[in-house]
Amino acid sequence: MTSDPKRLAMALIGHPPDSLALIEQALTHRSAGPVNNERLEFLGDALLGFVIAEVLLQRFPEASEGDLTRRRATLVNREALAKIARALNLGDYLRLDSGALRSGGHARDSVLSDALEALIGAIYLDQGFARAKQMILEVFAESLADVANQEARKDPKTRLQEWLQARRRTLPEYEVTAVTGEQHAQRFEVRCRLPDDGRECLGDGSSRRRAEQQSAETMLALLTETN
Amino acid sequence: MTSDPKRLAMALIGHPPDSLALIEQALTHRSAGPVNNERLEFLGDALLGFVIAEVLLQRFPEASEGDLTRRRATLVNREALAKIARALNLGDYLRLDSGALRSGGHARDSVLSDALEALIGAIYLDQGFARAKQMILEVFAESLADVANQEARKDPKTRLQEWLQARRRTLPEYEVTAVTGEQHAQRFEVRCRLPDDGRECLGDGSSRRRAEQQSAETMLALLTETN
Repeated sequence: MTSDPKRLAMALIGHPPDSLALIEQALTHRSAGPVNNERLEFLGDALLGFVIAEVLLQRFPEASEGDLTRRRATLVNREALAKIARALNLGDYLRLDSGALRSGGHARDSVLSDALEALIGAIYLDQGFARAKQMILEVFAESLADVANQEARKDPKTRLQEWLQARRRTLPEYEVTAVTGEQHAQRFEVRCRLPDDGRECLGDGSSRRRAEQQSAETMLALLTETN
Repeated sequence: MTSDPKRLAMALIGHPPDSLALIEQALTHRSAGPVNNERLEFLGDALLGFVIAEVLLQRFPEASEGDLTRRRATLVNREALAKIARALNLGDYLRLDSGALRSGGHARDSVLSDALEALIGAIYLDQGFARAKQMILEVFAESLADVANQEARKDPKTRLQEWLQARRRTLPEYEVTAVTGEQHAQRFEVRCRLPDDGRECLGDGSSRRRAEQQSAETMLALLTETN
């Protein structure tokens, strides 16, 4: 007993699709017949890879190509797609042959992940690029927010180190250049220096560690504003 | 001495780009500085993969997912992209540091292929999806025509066999069902049968081989019209 594919399309694009047949095809596993979702999956997989590439490029203006590739791989993989497919209850809409269904095919990661990609391909063919992109951004909103949060939770020294490593540059040197104030209210001034191009900046704080983090934050800002 | 990037953009999109800086960045090898084409290449690579996926899906309505993947790999790879880059004289526009230039970097397949992908990414950011897609179709027109011609040169029995293999189906059986006419003007009638679903059709011709080919052609038409 499968749910109405039109309802799924409504949930994804806000109105009925132009071609319900395309949406039905995207939900048809190859076990259910020759008109199945394999070709649409090929298209949807490629579109998804591109749309996520663009989002990551915008959200991480400082990230290297290798870094972007790694981030995309954590967002777009079988497990991650199956999780999104489950949140959409995609399993309820799938058409599989009775054998595949009995063996739990509608709940398998690979089947769910393929169907989600096929659905993305179908929505592109039905609605065009802009709406398919919007739909992708909506269903990936939570995963994208998670990636951004993970980034924000990293401290500035870690982020600076990763930024430099991604560009095969030498690591920064931190040096305390001044300690001022009384014992219970000391202030530290730290210089962060990049040995390979001699660039320097200062940070200060109530501990050496805080001053280092601040100098790293400033250095990152300097590096990324010229990029 | 590098040629004017604006001229290249004119040749590719028919008018000056909105941001010449983006085009320049796409033409800048990582050896020439921190603002280089690596991030744009990440974007262009993904867009190219998607656009070629869509074209192949349209041009080969009978092809399986695996078949489409293989075709795309023959169109989009380092050597194929470098060939297109050379036809555009991309090497003349590249910015590399003097060491990379002296060692012939501007003529290397990897450098040319990366720059072409970066250029595709830059044109997408500058001009939007529809124009970037158009530009890709134009520069790939010849390669796409080659792929279509290779297909047309294959005989119907080969194409039927590939179609069935791609779907993991059993191979067709051919049987001569009638031979008519006098010795110097014989006609052969051949039946093509698919053992797994029992579908049959007939072909005829002035030789057994011609009759088989005709039956295979008819079978392919039957299979793909219901797909």
